[in-house]
Amino acid sequence: MTPPRRTQVGIIGAGPAGLLLSHLLHLRGIDSVVLERRSRDHVERRIRAGVLEQGTVDTLVAAGVGDRLTREGLVHHGIELRYGGTGHRVPFERLVPGRAITVYGQQEVVKDLIAARLAAGGDIRFEVGDVAVHDAATDAPYLTFDGQRLDCDVIAGCDGFHGVSRASVPEGELTVYERDYPFAWLGVLARVEPSAEELIYAWNERGFALHSMRSPEISRFYLQVPAGEDVADWPNERIWAELRARLETVPGFTLTTGEIVEKGVTPMRSFVAEPMRHGNLFLAGDAAHIVPPTGAKGLNLAVADVRVLTEALAHRYATGSGDLLDAYSETCLRRVWRAQHFSWWMTTLLHTFETDDAYARRLQVSHLDYVTSSEAAATTLAENYVGLPYERDLPEPTEQ
Amino acid sequence: MTPPRRTQVGIIGAGPAGLLLSHLLHLRGIDSVVLERRSRDHVERRIRAGVLEQGTVDTLVAAGVGDRLTREGLVHHGIELRYGGTGHRVPFERLVPGRAITVYGQQEVVKDLIAARLAAGGDIRFEVGDVAVHDAATDAPYLTFDGQRLDCDVIAGCDGFHGVSRASVPEGELTVYERDYPFAWLGVLARVEPSAEELIYAWNERGFALHSMRSPEISRFYLQVPAGEDVADWPNERIWAELRARLETVPGFTLTTGEIVEKGVTPMRSFVAEPMRHGNLFLAGDAAHIVPPTGAKGLNLAVADVRVLTEALAHRYATGSGDLLDAYSETCLRRVWRAQHFSWWMTTLLHTFETDDAYARRLQVSHLDYVTSSEAAATTLAENYVGLPYERDLPEPTEQ
Repeated sequence: MTPPRRTQVGIIGAGPAGLLLSHLLHLRGIDSVVLERRSRDHVERRIRAGVLEQGTVDTLVAAGVGDRLTREGLVHHGIELRYGGTGHRVPFERLVPGRAITVYGQQEVVKDLIAARLAAGGDIRFEVGDVAVHDAATDAPYLTFDGQRLDCDVIAGCDGFHGVSRASVPEGELTVYERDYPFAWLGVLARVEPSAEELIYAWNERGFALHSMRSPEISRFYLQVPAGEDVADWPNERIWAELRARLETVPGFTLTTGEIVEKGVTPMRSFVAEPMRHGNLFLAGDAAHIVPPTGAKGLNLAVADVRVLTEALAHRYATGSGDLLDAYSETCLRRVWRAQHFSWWMTTLLHTFETDDAYARRLQVSHLDYVTSSEAAATTLAENYVGLPYERDLPEPTEQ
Repeated sequence: MTPPRRTQVGIIGAGPAGLLLSHLLHLRGIDSVVLERRSRDHVERRIRAGVLEQGTVDTLVAAGVGDRLTREGLVHHGIELRYGGTGHRVPFERLVPGRAITVYGQQEVVKDLIAARLAAGGDIRFEVGDVAVHDAATDAPYLTFDGQRLDCDVIAGCDGFHGVSRASVPEGELTVYERDYPFAWLGVLARVEPSAEELIYAWNERGFALHSMRSPEISRFYLQVPAGEDVADWPNERIWAELRARLETVPGFTLTTGEIVEKGVTPMRSFVAEPMRHGNLFLAGDAAHIVPPTGAKGLNLAVADVRVLTEALAHRYATGSGDLLDAYSETCLRRVWRAQHFSWWMTTLLHTFETDDAYARRLQVSHLDYVTSSEAAATTLAENYVGLPYERDLPEPTEQ
């Protein structure tokens, strides 16, 4: 075995959570090592989320990794809800002034963070095997991988839903809350100009569809399909026909079609593991919680977790006090549960459920009518969609 | 058979809908006869809803039947949501300025309307038997009762969910949307001073509870109980113990107990029949739609229906045009479906469901946290609770 190396924070996973954590810690003078089982090329190409909240953008810009994001990201001040033959814009500029979303692929964030870490001499190990967490409940936790050992003050589990971090926590230490949905999203990346300037969330008797984009040349689409659907059952012609049927429902809207460069099926799941800590192992992002993608919250929650964890670690190294680390899980979980509810809400608002009877269907349309006609209801959608301010991680009741 | 009598509008049912319709029509110079199968004493004592929206109060006052309501009604500018050991006030005065609710028993509204109709020489027949609707689909509809015949221009079915009006519509003419809930409300009227100035909607692991009142001396309570519960299983001591367990959850709150003067179990159901018209028979209030009582919308919806029907009938008699009558169902159903959604929303927000798993329970608390911490979310509750303005019977989308 190679002689042990030591770092302050051992980070598992070079997704946005792990990379941003490593970067933010570096800015605070805290050393870390990132272990990633896939190749750099793989993580830089992995298509995932693409909607950044205002706070996520602000965080990346403030951390000095927002140059390309600022240049290439598409700032959107609204989304469209489309149903019943009409499109209804939810105008962020009026409902949540000063807050917007930025369309910028997660893999682009990953590229920017990797570049920044490497430029600063950061230590990211790609393609490492057999990562394992040891003695997390003690004051001397360590990681092993490929026959090497990495001693740490703390370990950050940023390795996603299927990673080893959460799995390493002993049975019974975590309480799990979860829900599976009876449908999935068929995601499609197409080399075609977006058919509209903003995202279109379309409710349809045939199922939900989402028109999105990655750049002025690349469109991103999603179709609600049954859970467990095989992508092989969706030849390109069927995809375009279904997208047209669900999106070309308002006068004057024509879907631009073209080359499909990637397609895949994403399951829809809600999941939370509590607490987000076991001893000196801290879980962040998808390792601790999953939301269905309808509310575009997954990546943004990871960024919020990492902000809280960075502050808590910096506080500990500066003062010796573990108070903020002790509060980490509870602090994050407030935002996590808000996002869980919002993501469930957006999902049930917009998807068709086979179990829905006629009453449920009418209720859903009535709900859409309300969201598109009440300023207050539209604001609830807008404020969650652009992201609640970080101060709101500790919400105060409206009035006692 | 007694020689036929003729009236312009034959009204079935002397509940708030039928009586208010008769009164409003009278103010517009339109003749009506009200047929009621129960006694005057019975309808004046029947305990039902007790929360009047701002628009309902305005309607009654404008119609000259609001004197006692104005004098004795309790105007409330907020309600409390109580859960997790804390009470959170939803402050109407800030969220929906100028709009409030008035606590005034439905049977008091009924008394005031009967008095007004009789003082004006109105024709209300109590304790009539065998009411039947005939030839509703023709231009010569008529009613029969107790061997008598009443010819009408139109018939208004205001006889509630179990009445003959909707039942008289031929099979297949109405589309029914409905949902039953797996719980009911045990309602209690007690001769005790209210324990708080405002209504308290309490979420609790044991089930929902509502603290309400009818006057400074009379309290009204509701307890979530399983559907089909027998009131005999709820002796007074059990009722008070359960109310204490669900309501005495915040420091300093003590439930005032005393004599229980009435108790009963109300099933919870959502129901809509469409259209609210069959030929010259127009359904209004509970005859056409039912909501669970959580949002306090039943009586208020009936008043809204009656307003629309009055305008439509007045328009027809003034101009000969049936345009507004033709629009009656669609006009009412917009508000009806808004109230359906709101009532379902309040019900699912506040009740416990045996089928809920741990995730659903956490989602519910997260939802409550949001409603009590977001100004926009609290406003959605407030604006629905005090009642959307009648202009909103035709909502416009937020923005196209």
